[in-house]
Amino acid sequence: MISREFKPLDYLKEEELEQIHLGALAALEGDGVEFFSREARDILKKAGAKVEGENVYLPRELVMEQVAQAPSEFTLHARNPENNVVVGGYNTVHAPGYGSPYVMDYVQNKRRSADYKDYVAFTKLTGNSGNLDVAGGVVVEPNDIPDYIRHAKMFQAAVKHTDKCLMGSSMGAKKAQESLEMAGIIFGGVDKVRKNPALISLINTNSPLQFDPRMLESMMVYAHNNQPVLFSALTMTGTTSPVTLAGALVQQTAEILSGVTLAQLINPGTPVVFGSASSVVDLRTGDLAIGSPESTKMFSVIAQLARFYGLPSRGGGSLTDSIIPDVQSGYESMMVLMNCVVCGINFMLHSAGLLENYMTMSYEKFIIDDEILGMARDFASPMSVNEDTLAVDTIIKHGSGGNYIADEHTFKHMKEMRIPIISSRERYAAGGDLVDAAQRAHEYCKAVLQDYRNPSLDENIEDELNKYIENIPTE
Amino acid sequence: MISREFKPLDYLKEEELEQIHLGALAALEGDGVEFFSREARDILKKAGAKVEGENVYLPRELVMEQVAQAPSEFTLHARNPENNVVVGGYNTVHAPGYGSPYVMDYVQNKRRSADYKDYVAFTKLTGNSGNLDVAGGVVVEPNDIPDYIRHAKMFQAAVKHTDKCLMGSSMGAKKAQESLEMAGIIFGGVDKVRKNPALISLINTNSPLQFDPRMLESMMVYAHNNQPVLFSALTMTGTTSPVTLAGALVQQTAEILSGVTLAQLINPGTPVVFGSASSVVDLRTGDLAIGSPESTKMFSVIAQLARFYGLPSRGGGSLTDSIIPDVQSGYESMMVLMNCVVCGINFMLHSAGLLENYMTMSYEKFIIDDEILGMARDFASPMSVNEDTLAVDTIIKHGSGGNYIADEHTFKHMKEMRIPIISSRERYAAGGDLVDAAQRAHEYCKAVLQDYRNPSLDENIEDELNKYIENIPTE
Repeated sequence: MISREFKPLDYLKEEELEQIHLGALAALEGDGVEFFSREARDILKKAGAKVEGENVYLPRELVMEQVAQAPSEFTLHARNPENNVVVGGYNTVHAPGYGSPYVMDYVQNKRRSADYKDYVAFTKLTGNSGNLDVAGGVVVEPNDIPDYIRHAKMFQAAVKHTDKCLMGSSMGAKKAQESLEMAGIIFGGVDKVRKNPALISLINTNSPLQFDPRMLESMMVYAHNNQPVLFSALTMTGTTSPVTLAGALVQQTAEILSGVTLAQLINPGTPVVFGSASSVVDLRTGDLAIGSPESTKMFSVIAQLARFYGLPSRGGGSLTDSIIPDVQSGYESMMVLMNCVVCGINFMLHSAGLLENYMTMSYEKFIIDDEILGMARDFASPMSVNEDTLAVDTIIKHGSGGNYIADEHTFKHMKEMRIPIISSRERYAAGGDLVDAAQRAHEYCKAVLQDYRNPSLDENIEDELNKYIENIPTE
Repeated sequence: MISREFKPLDYLKEEELEQIHLGALAALEGDGVEFFSREARDILKKAGAKVEGENVYLPRELVMEQVAQAPSEFTLHARNPENNVVVGGYNTVHAPGYGSPYVMDYVQNKRRSADYKDYVAFTKLTGNSGNLDVAGGVVVEPNDIPDYIRHAKMFQAAVKHTDKCLMGSSMGAKKAQESLEMAGIIFGGVDKVRKNPALISLINTNSPLQFDPRMLESMMVYAHNNQPVLFSALTMTGTTSPVTLAGALVQQTAEILSGVTLAQLINPGTPVVFGSASSVVDLRTGDLAIGSPESTKMFSVIAQLARFYGLPSRGGGSLTDSIIPDVQSGYESMMVLMNCVVCGINFMLHSAGLLENYMTMSYEKFIIDDEILGMARDFASPMSVNEDTLAVDTIIKHGSGGNYIADEHTFKHMKEMRIPIISSRERYAAGGDLVDAAQRAHEYCKAVLQDYRNPSLDENIEDELNKYIENIPTE
């Protein structure tokens, strides 16, 4: 978790922000949102929304009333309480990549299908990272595990190999319920989980202005049980949203607010996050451009809109459109991630490992991103300003032309400097090796996986979880 | 030039900033600064400073009085008035790398000594860039040109191959005077240059708390002639300044303010910049760590301190400690450059080309940095928010599940998206080439240099400049 002290950058002027807000309310009233779930529509109708077929028109008073019920921050609980995080305020909580079907093989220089071995390895890297807070999402898609049990096997790996915060499945009501019951095993009962939210889940919109039944149904399970929901608008400019950034933000805001409204109607006070995984499309080719400044601008405004609504925000990641861990992957990932921290994004999925927009996970990029995260964390961590660090007496003592190298003050503070993981500061040497940082990441990653030790876990819990998973029905 | 609309990020709290300010004033009174120039000391003594040997103790009233005379922004004039820039306000002006003695050969993968051919080539790349505003600095050290004429040959190349803003030599009074006279040839007389400042020069401190005679003497020539001066504190933590960032900032502030005081006493209203090229040292090895978050934090506070004093700021660059254009060079350069833009740095030397801290220039990195600059410029450029871009009617028209691809609104706005220079958004293809962005930069650079055309230049001016340079005495 990154904690800042400086005020986040407000990207837009207040009056511009308000125009986006008013545009979203107008869209919710004028067009509405399609909810592909009768239960959802019934709840909204009962609250005063007009329903026509699947479409729900949401009056602005209803929306604003419900949004006001959501907490501005909440604690997400981990099985090791030291790893609890606060989502909201001046914090940014980090989770690794989510949902990639592929893995890039650095040695073979080829992309291949991801499997459960990859899932376990990336989960260990997540456990090892000092910068990642959340495990148990779809860190990479374990394509070799049958669908009916995939969410459970991912959950099991996350619990076994880390003691960090966890994510729940958003693949329908059944899997959400199972996620919740497995969390109950870990935390001493589902009641405890309800009291101390421990499963955060990703609920994407189906842009423009729809929610699909699977996501909706799992969301309703989580809302009923007071588990945090990451509502994420997933628009693509010029195809599933207007091509203009302001227009895309109007639509995203409408989509997110409609989800938040439903969650609050189900259970007032449900922890929700105002989120975006939207991106800009390069309309020359139709390819995503998630490592672009335009995408970054959208995330900056998402953070600002969330503050306007008094909600935590989600956006960004260590995002790149490059397919290899080259210089492009470095400058793009740093741009998106650092600006999202500076602009006050509170929850950042996709913080480590991604290449080729959201398609591919890379072991080397995971380590590189851990370095980027560490740098962002250091930038955000407060500079110590007090009589000792100001060192006025030391400056006067040494005077003009002095040298501080052997000073007591230097010895006292020199260890405060951050030590990089893979970044090199070695100077050029004739005949020396010019090693690429990606190669150092490759070697570092191998060593981490070789030496990794699981955190301790109660054997009874492990057994109970095993038994639970064995009994999951195949249909 | 990058122009923002958002307020810069204030990194420190006001009371913390004030402590640094007060610490600097205490250091100036308690220790003073060594000025290795009798003329400089006499000017300061006459104004009320206490002088002991080379050391000058500066009373805080004198410092603050003089600092208040400096303009908060000023225009730097180019021979093509369309390329004039405003240093200060919400702008960031960019100049390429400065002072590297080496060039990295990408094909041979070897570092070599830089020469005049390199100088000319990097100057052409500067001319080609849509993001760089200033030419004529020591873009790379032309080691094959004799010292007595090196500044003049660099000036000549900058004038011939670009029509952008220019830098003056800071290598002593004689060369500064010659820079001024050459500028006079370009701009129709030295008097015109005095009225419309056209030569910005880099005056580094000799930390801790000294000014060397060569820099001082050239600075005095420029101040007498109303040319802008980039005062830059060049401290290294734990060796030539305290190891703590706050302490290093106290010392830097003292150094810069002492220079500003002298410049204002010479000519009230001399345009000056509150600058830093200071860096953090990795004390495990003694190597610089200019691509570190710690260095970035210092630049952020430098920008904030400059705003406090009502002065334009200098800091940052596309800085990296990597010796090759790898992923590390990408994430480090983006971090420093983007945060300096976000935090409001007004003048950024070293914006393109550097590798291996300040030691080496790279053609490929120059192109990569031009891409990074373009991304930072796009991020900083205002998002258009109005009825048309908000597109509420378009959203309502398409409704849930619609597609915007063929919409008039999409056609109208789709060309507003930035087209990258070398960044790729192509997806992975089995059997396809996995080309590194550095390789694309290499090819792009070759094409630019092949096709480059000089801007037009009056033949008489060219002749006069040639004659002036031929007549420069060798001593």
